[in-house]
Amino acid sequence: MTDNSVVKAALRKQAIELPSWAFANSGTRFKVFGQPGVPRTPHEKIADAAQVHRYTGVAPSVALHIPWDTVDDYGELAAYAREQGVRIGTINSNVFQDDDFKLGSVANPDPAIRAKALDHLLACVDVMDATGSADLKLWFADGTNYPGQDDVRVRQDRLAEALEAVRDRLSPDQRMLLEYKLFEPAFYTTDVPDWGTAYAHCLKLGDRAQVVVDTGHHAPSTNIEFIVAFLLREHKLGGFDFNSRFYADDDLMVGAADPFQLFRIMYEVVRGGGFEPEEGIAFMLDQCHNIEPKIPGQIRSVLNVQEATAKALLVDAEALSAAQRAGDVLGANAVLMDAYNTDVRPLLAELRAEEGLDPDPMAAFARSGYMEAIAAERVGGQQAGWGA
Amino acid sequence: MTDNSVVKAALRKQAIELPSWAFANSGTRFKVFGQPGVPRTPHEKIADAAQVHRYTGVAPSVALHIPWDTVDDYGELAAYAREQGVRIGTINSNVFQDDDFKLGSVANPDPAIRAKALDHLLACVDVMDATGSADLKLWFADGTNYPGQDDVRVRQDRLAEALEAVRDRLSPDQRMLLEYKLFEPAFYTTDVPDWGTAYAHCLKLGDRAQVVVDTGHHAPSTNIEFIVAFLLREHKLGGFDFNSRFYADDDLMVGAADPFQLFRIMYEVVRGGGFEPEEGIAFMLDQCHNIEPKIPGQIRSVLNVQEATAKALLVDAEALSAAQRAGDVLGANAVLMDAYNTDVRPLLAELRAEEGLDPDPMAAFARSGYMEAIAAERVGGQQAGWGA
Amino acid sequence: MTDNSVVKAALRKQAIELPSWAFANSGTRFKVFGQPGVPRTPHEKIADAAQVHRYTGVAPSVALHIPWDTVDDYGELAAYAREQGVRIGTINSNVFQDDDFKLGSVANPDPAIRAKALDHLLACVDVMDATGSADLKLWFADGTNYPGQDDVRVRQDRLAEALEAVRDRLSPDQRMLLEYKLFEPAFYTTDVPDWGTAYAHCLKLGDRAQVVVDTGHHAPSTNIEFIVAFLLREHKLGGFDFNSRFYADDDLMVGAADPFQLFRIMYEVVRGGGFEPEEGIAFMLDQCHNIEPKIPGQIRSVLNVQEATAKALLVDAEALSAAQRAGDVLGANAVLMDAYNTDVRPLLAELRAEEGLDPDPMAAFARSGYMEAIAAERVGGQQAGWGA
Amino acid sequence: MTDNSVVKAALRKQAIELPSWAFANSGTRFKVFGQPGVPRTPHEKIADAAQVHRYTGVAPSVALHIPWDTVDDYGELAAYAREQGVRIGTINSNVFQDDDFKLGSVANPDPAIRAKALDHLLACVDVMDATGSADLKLWFADGTNYPGQDDVRVRQDRLAEALEAVRDRLSPDQRMLLEYKLFEPAFYTTDVPDWGTAYAHCLKLGDRAQVVVDTGHHAPSTNIEFIVAFLLREHKLGGFDFNSRFYADDDLMVGAADPFQLFRIMYEVVRGGGFEPEEGIAFMLDQCHNIEPKIPGQIRSVLNVQEATAKALLVDAEALSAAQRAGDVLGANAVLMDAYNTDVRPLLAELRAEEGLDPDPMAAFARSGYMEAIAAERVGGQQAGWGA
Repeated sequence: MTDNSVVKAALRKQAIELPSWAFANSGTRFKVFGQPGVPRTPHEKIADAAQVHRYTGVAPSVALHIPWDTVDDYGELAAYAREQGVRIGTINSNVFQDDDFKLGSVANPDPAIRAKALDHLLACVDVMDATGSADLKLWFADGTNYPGQDDVRVRQDRLAEALEAVRDRLSPDQRMLLEYKLFEPAFYTTDVPDWGTAYAHCLKLGDRAQVVVDTGHHAPSTNIEFIVAFLLREHKLGGFDFNSRFYADDDLMVGAADPFQLFRIMYEVVRGGGFEPEEGIAFMLDQCHNIEPKIPGQIRSVLNVQEATAKALLVDAEALSAAQRAGDVLGANAVLMDAYNTDVRPLLAELRAEEGLDPDPMAAFARSGYMEAIAAERVGGQQAGWGA
Repeated sequence: MTDNSVVKAALRKQAIELPSWAFANSGTRFKVFGQPGVPRTPHEKIADAAQVHRYTGVAPSVALHIPWDTVDDYGELAAYAREQGVRIGTINSNVFQDDDFKLGSVANPDPAIRAKALDHLLACVDVMDATGSADLKLWFADGTNYPGQDDVRVRQDRLAEALEAVRDRLSPDQRMLLEYKLFEPAFYTTDVPDWGTAYAHCLKLGDRAQVVVDTGHHAPSTNIEFIVAFLLREHKLGGFDFNSRFYADDDLMVGAADPFQLFRIMYEVVRGGGFEPEEGIAFMLDQCHNIEPKIPGQIRSVLNVQEATAKALLVDAEALSAAQRAGDVLGANAVLMDAYNTDVRPLLAELRAEEGLDPDPMAAFARSGYMEAIAAERVGGQQAGWGA
Repeated sequence: MTDNSVVKAALRKQAIELPSWAFANSGTRFKVFGQPGVPRTPHEKIADAAQVHRYTGVAPSVALHIPWDTVDDYGELAAYAREQGVRIGTINSNVFQDDDFKLGSVANPDPAIRAKALDHLLACVDVMDATGSADLKLWFADGTNYPGQDDVRVRQDRLAEALEAVRDRLSPDQRMLLEYKLFEPAFYTTDVPDWGTAYAHCLKLGDRAQVVVDTGHHAPSTNIEFIVAFLLREHKLGGFDFNSRFYADDDLMVGAADPFQLFRIMYEVVRGGGFEPEEGIAFMLDQCHNIEPKIPGQIRSVLNVQEATAKALLVDAEALSAAQRAGDVLGANAVLMDAYNTDVRPLLAELRAEEGLDPDPMAAFARSGYMEAIAAERVGGQQAGWGA
Repeated sequence: MTDNSVVKAALRKQAIELPSWAFANSGTRFKVFGQPGVPRTPHEKIADAAQVHRYTGVAPSVALHIPWDTVDDYGELAAYAREQGVRIGTINSNVFQDDDFKLGSVANPDPAIRAKALDHLLACVDVMDATGSADLKLWFADGTNYPGQDDVRVRQDRLAEALEAVRDRLSPDQRMLLEYKLFEPAFYTTDVPDWGTAYAHCLKLGDRAQVVVDTGHHAPSTNIEFIVAFLLREHKLGGFDFNSRFYADDDLMVGAADPFQLFRIMYEVVRGGGFEPEEGIAFMLDQCHNIEPKIPGQIRSVLNVQEATAKALLVDAEALSAAQRAGDVLGANAVLMDAYNTDVRPLLAELRAEEGLDPDPMAAFARSGYMEAIAAERVGGQQAGWGA
């Protein structure tokens, strides 16, 4: 397998972005269970995210969700983040919670509502300008619930028109990342259901548009690592929204449901050069901690990605390639599995010690008393959630 | 095909139960879109349900959901229903929205919370006594999100204990209907994930426990009509929660996503004697009208069930059986499809005319002005939803 | 709804292509059950296919599968087809049954095997030249069974190289149709698993390369009609391989498993101009009649496509569009369902009578005595199947 | 985690049964690729299976498939097995490959064919008597391809009748193990599609009938470990047919597609006492090595089961239970994952050394020259496959 020092060198460059909303309350349509100490403001979310970075060392940025993270002064928020030791990352647009968006946003049959949706997207670019964010993440809840409800093809025209307007608004150093999702909240069609649709739009939009792979947004049995490999080959992979699932878009902690799949995905990233800076892949979490505490849930998720990455880096590329070229099915599989079956936790503990971090981030955070402190301090006010 | 007069005679006996919550606001975890005129009280829900019965003639009862439909005087509510021309049907328990139920209700690791959950179930039987309802529907959101989170087997013991206590509380003329669901809101295990689990519990509980089939609660590719046929053969089918889906538990209008599946289900009901009073099958709707108006959505759903039933009744049982016994694959399939391909809307229009109803319930309701009236009248107050 | 005369005029132009192999024996990995009268030669397959056209009037061409339909003189075979009243259609390549193709054909790690596979593809174009076929259908069984078995990305390079070579060999009036399939016979990755992959390759290959949608080749819950609408919008839909399924690639008779889905697909074809000659969409069947008799199975399938098409043509486009633009969810759905719920069999019987055909093709064929005649005549020799 | 010595003691008692047919040729409906050295007789299959036991030490028995393994003298075959160091295990019936079984075996509409199928099942018990096998495994390909093809309910009656006749024929020390499968080769209904159906039949059949879980026979997203836990609680789990899959019944090497799932399954076995002799669980492989060499494929599979078992045994039951009772979601999950993330290969190498085995069975077998020897020796004759 690859030498540990090489693996560690690569791991030192890894960066995983945290979603501000992972620290807020979330739930299912049946119930949102609140938790003590949950942030009430974007600043408190960033403070929590900074804790994750403090103990893992690999989570230096925080994605915002607009309007959930709306503030008067984004420059001040960015400065606050820097003070906390992190920075503002991707800006996520939200055009699915205004009452006007019941039948869609940029693909709505009503032109006035489409204009309103586009205005929001452009306002998100304003936020990017203010925060210095490079990436705009676009996920549309647009779609239909019933056959015939709307014209599937015309909706594509409307979508394309909005995407072009956003593209034209971007600065040269800004990107738009288009996310796809098979279903939910729309239950018959979604307007960007799969990577093929996102890819086709991004091709037309040009270099500044790329595809985001959310690991929970596929049909059952979809081979996600194939998509990753394919998009990397096309230089159209913009990033990941990591989470895991057993059923639909469960939004469980990444690596919790299928750690082997996560390893296979990270292997294709490594193999396809996806950690090279010029590919510009954004590694983001997008999860819901419905029943588990949120900061430890994020730390665990970061560790899961890091462990899968370490295993992927361990794969003996030369031995693998030789077995593959020889048509040695079992031999090639064994090379890959040898890396997967390795316990990389000692290596990662060592790496952390070398970086001046506690070798066990979960335990160190638990000992810190932060959870107890925020539970005591954050009393009153409105806990943040998806609704605000 | 079966003679129209025979079909009509059977259809005259059909009864479809409406869920009170279908008239309230509902949505996804992303957003609940309100609608004008939505009921604020159980009485207003019942008034709306009565409209569906008025125009279709086959929806004489309304299921309640406790605590969403909690009132001080259930006897008065039942009397109100009768005034409106309908009656109170099944009582649905709800042990998934109290903060204590974050890790489950009757299968919770905490015995105090289990006791609280059981208290609620028993209180629902009190409501049944007050309303004269015969059926208690039990759906549990219980389960786990992560491997290892709880002991799958011990949870079964806890579940069994609670079910026995409920069974012991029932009067001789009352039943408990146990519903199963593959996932959501729990995302790793659910404690009653499939019909086999519900069946095994009901077997032990005895004659007053039966299985409810919710048509949206299965794994992809599950053959639901097989389950219906099997449970009918075992006399353990208690009823249906009808809805439809393309993906997960979408809760779309029944018959909207796969009308052929609905027909096949109704065919197995007909073939298995499921319309005979002694089988006691409850035909209930359980749906969410997230974006479409609710009363017309319910009327459409009732019509869809009625149309599927009419087609199922039309199947020439003798010709089908002859082709089946002869091993005539295409011939037997053709007998079934002949009924499915028939346009039964004229037959149903005729039936309605004979019953003194408007032949076109959707149009008649639209003309009635009821929607406009409730939108104007129901101003102020809190619209009902899943939360209240 | 659309006027019947308009519907009939459109239906008169419809053409559905039959697969020669549908008349041969087929089965599962568990067993191939033979049937009396099954063809032993390509000529006998064409004779059987001609029966389907004789009774339906809408199946004027037959696709060949090479080497299953290898003959010495393709010109003679084409002439024989014309005598029988049909013509040779698409040529299907087969690079999955030679022992050399165990680890793939054009994506095989061994360059010599790749060359052999390409030779076969080019030889198929020779057959096209000889038969006058315009379309080459490419389906690759290529893929891997185990993670690590081969390099997913390099396999794309190999695939692209072969596709370019085929493209360069085509005459200006010939096309290549690239088919995708999620899995089977490969069980971990396939090299063209989804429409996005096929689309991306076809884009690079240029105008003469288009995507084929096989209705059984998708992940569970995939919305096929969306893909159809999207590819039509991009002018990259080359054609269909029609069949139906409940589970995987079951290859049941088209329309048998989900007639509503078939209707929705045909509706998107109609709506997207897919019947216009300039779109050049090929409507092909690709099915296995494992247990039912083959010629009647094909007739039934053709009728199912025809009935779905008639319903799609009946949709009142103006009313639908008005309801869609008004955001009338139930109204728009009702317009679509009104067409679907119509019994179009009388209209089709009328159309056939006008064309001089028997109004009931299934019954007319059964009466013809053809099945009995071939069962008596085709004795001895080797029945055709997938292996020859 | 559990002490290594305790884990090793438990592992020493493990026994995994090999299927004779895994050493024969297998494939998909598209192609069966032959391999050099493949057995031509049941004796050669047993010789190959004995190699797997020689190098792993945990595969002491071989399952037969009748008629694939038909011999004149079963006593002699059993003696031959003992000479090779293994014994005959489960007898698998096969009522799906005779031409008469096109429309089913014990559930066929034709009573003569049902009788023929039952005769075969009873003849399998004769084989058990002759070989000393304790278990009869029953898998039925019975089902239908098209709605209406046969009467779903009557087929259950026929099935039940045959199962009772088999039960009555068994000796007191013999069991019948009923396997379920969602689909394939039947594509609309199967007569035993899920564990609930198998369970319901076994309940009625009494103590000598139990359910077999084939890990590839479920609907997508089914939680198999839940079923295992449930059946163990009911003492109705008879055994496993191990394999793995990404899509349908892919029959890949167990543990290859989802090693975490295999671990979760083995954890529920451990937790439910499934290794206790009195539970009598049979741990069998049922796989197809379509493209990889067969003996190494079986060795790898045995190692995968052994590794998953070792990890399951490592779980700190006390710590897990404490975290579960405390409702510590992340803590409980961490206890489970701690065992899963452990590299158990050193422990297993140590165990093998203690048992006098080579620590690396794959390498040791490769070095043995057995593969080369059989390739040279087994020339001529008919390689065994599913057809013979």
